[in-house]
Amino acid sequence: MPIITLTTDFGTSDGYVGAMKGVIARGAPEATVIDIAHDVPRHDVAHAAWIVRTACREFPAGTIHVVVIDPGVGTARAAVIVDAGDHLYVGPDNGVFAYLEEQRAWRIERGLPSEPSATFHGRDVFAQVAAHLATGHGPLFFGDRARLAGELPWGPGEGTVVHVDHFGNLISDLPPCEKVTIVGRELRVLRTYEDVAPGELLAYVGSAGTIEVGVRDGRADRLLEAPRGTRVVPVAAGDAYR
Amino acid sequence: MPIITLTTDFGTSDGYVGAMKGVIARGAPEATVIDIAHDVPRHDVAHAAWIVRTACREFPAGTIHVVVIDPGVGTARAAVIVDAGDHLYVGPDNGVFAYLEEQRAWRIERGLPSEPSATFHGRDVFAQVAAHLATGHGPLFFGDRARLAGELPWGPGEGTVVHVDHFGNLISDLPPCEKVTIVGRELRVLRTYEDVAPGELLAYVGSAGTIEVGVRDGRADRLLEAPRGTRVVPVAAGDAYR
Amino acid sequence: MPIITLTTDFGTSDGYVGAMKGVIARGAPEATVIDIAHDVPRHDVAHAAWIVRTACREFPAGTIHVVVIDPGVGTARAAVIVDAGDHLYVGPDNGVFAYLEEQRAWRIERGLPSEPSATFHGRDVFAQVAAHLATGHGPLFFGDRARLAGELPWGPGEGTVVHVDHFGNLISDLPPCEKVTIVGRELRVLRTYEDVAPGELLAYVGSAGTIEVGVRDGRADRLLEAPRGTRVVPVAAGDAYR
Repeated sequence: MPIITLTTDFGTSDGYVGAMKGVIARGAPEATVIDIAHDVPRHDVAHAAWIVRTACREFPAGTIHVVVIDPGVGTARAAVIVDAGDHLYVGPDNGVFAYLEEQRAWRIERGLPSEPSATFHGRDVFAQVAAHLATGHGPLFFGDRARLAGELPWGPGEGTVVHVDHFGNLISDLPPCEKVTIVGRELRVLRTYEDVAPGELLAYVGSAGTIEVGVRDGRADRLLEAPRGTRVVPVAAGDAYR
Repeated sequence: MPIITLTTDFGTSDGYVGAMKGVIARGAPEATVIDIAHDVPRHDVAHAAWIVRTACREFPAGTIHVVVIDPGVGTARAAVIVDAGDHLYVGPDNGVFAYLEEQRAWRIERGLPSEPSATFHGRDVFAQVAAHLATGHGPLFFGDRARLAGELPWGPGEGTVVHVDHFGNLISDLPPCEKVTIVGRELRVLRTYEDVAPGELLAYVGSAGTIEVGVRDGRADRLLEAPRGTRVVPVAAGDAYR
Repeated sequence: MPIITLTTDFGTSDGYVGAMKGVIARGAPEATVIDIAHDVPRHDVAHAAWIVRTACREFPAGTIHVVVIDPGVGTARAAVIVDAGDHLYVGPDNGVFAYLEEQRAWRIERGLPSEPSATFHGRDVFAQVAAHLATGHGPLFFGDRARLAGELPWGPGEGTVVHVDHFGNLISDLPPCEKVTIVGRELRVLRTYEDVAPGELLAYVGSAGTIEVGVRDGRADRLLEAPRGTRVVPVAAGDAYR
């Protein structure tokens, strides 16, 4: 019984998510469908890429992840199946899976069974492909292994906020260190929120294994007015510290 | 293992959806419960009717759809089971299922096992009925086959926006044509968003098989200030086109 | 096949809920995971406590409820497993389960398998524990039976609004009575919304078995400007009624 996860920017007020689930229930009745997130900010590929990087990997081997955040809906950009060995990913080829390519080991297949419809890909195409994969028929079409489209909003050692979560925490791509500066503020990397007073900023190592900046009982994104892309710079151990 | 889908305006902050799922898990432990949408705008029967028309139909035969958008909660309006041959629908009889009646073939049963409670129908009544149907006990009470209550917000050939989706797309009831006018703008019906520049309006044939109006990388509802009910008029092929 | 329910304030835009589901899918593949609510207002323990009181109890015996609303995320407060005989509850020990303790019969176990991580408990700890419980391995560590932390926002006979729902209804802890006063308004307890005109206030006995105050086709929280904590006072049957 394979698992199919769904991550979209379709919201939870329309029938689009339901239509995808219906298509999967018809095509792969044995599959278990699991919602990851449907309120990804509209067309925010970087936001979804972060979910691919952090949440999808928690699922058991064999899971099929359908990720449809699609600013170019209906346009000519390719759709892909990404075969990551233990997991499969299905979605538009717009950078949302770029992180997987970084991992080298990934084998990438392109192509989808038919010409994408002009309108609503999530229902028309991606859900059908996921159902097809789940029933063991494998990828429907194997194309080249060209690079995945898009660029990641984060990179090794660049030190930027790569995700702002629902709580206003600023999640960076910095590996663990002792101190960081962000928006002119120097912050020691602490262990828990309890290490600061309510309303105060702190840095800590988040669940993704990278530096995060938060505010105890508050929102770091608002306190610092720091959007995604804000630089987060490690302070060398020997630096002066006021 | 029957499928029971849930579509409500209960939101995802309270326990109401959870209570329905608990009642179903108790009454029909074999059933698979699938969320379609819980953020239907409050009391918006027409919005839910569009979901019934477009998403519910994607599910496999035997699916039971619970649709509770209920402006008249606790009042005397009837509750219904709609037997559509391949699908069953359960909910208040307030127009949300009117589309099904349009399809002629539908056999309609009315009635529910007990007097609806004064308060929270979704949990008290509709979930119980769905569980009962899912376990194969069939409708609990068969009443007359009178017409379903309510009127559809759309009609054949009326040319109006019948749904505004999460992305701000304007979905009409117009069958495919070559050109339309909406709010004084004449739009050619194109194939994909890519056929216009970012920020520009276009019309296209949507996933429901009818004319939709959208904006590439934008929201048509805001650009046109066009709510549901806005007229969309086909332009005859022979008309002048500037 | 045990059921695991999830109630959080993680929202539906990030990957946190998905990560929890992934952990559970790995650890307890046979379990059925059911979303109760993920848009609990941020850090609102009282809101979640009401869901525990009203929705969780609807599930069949053997259900495991994971409830993570955690203002003190990463701090030293204990985490708990609450063994309620027919249901198990897992989450931070911050008052969200206080209602269960009121029920006397509840047997309470404390402790979790490992030191909570400094960062994201929901994924790091609570989901793992739920998966462990679901697979029948039982609580991982049994501690003392001290009282659960926190205080309920409601109490017997205190007559306050204990929950404001998605529709703006004011749900109190008052047992059924004939008349109540709230914000200086005296309201007869009626049977259904239909007993008043659109836009008018009414009181009625809600699905939790207590007095609720609502507005037909409106929001009582806005009309009365009454937040959680507002007093609701029963009017003795013999009192004068204008």
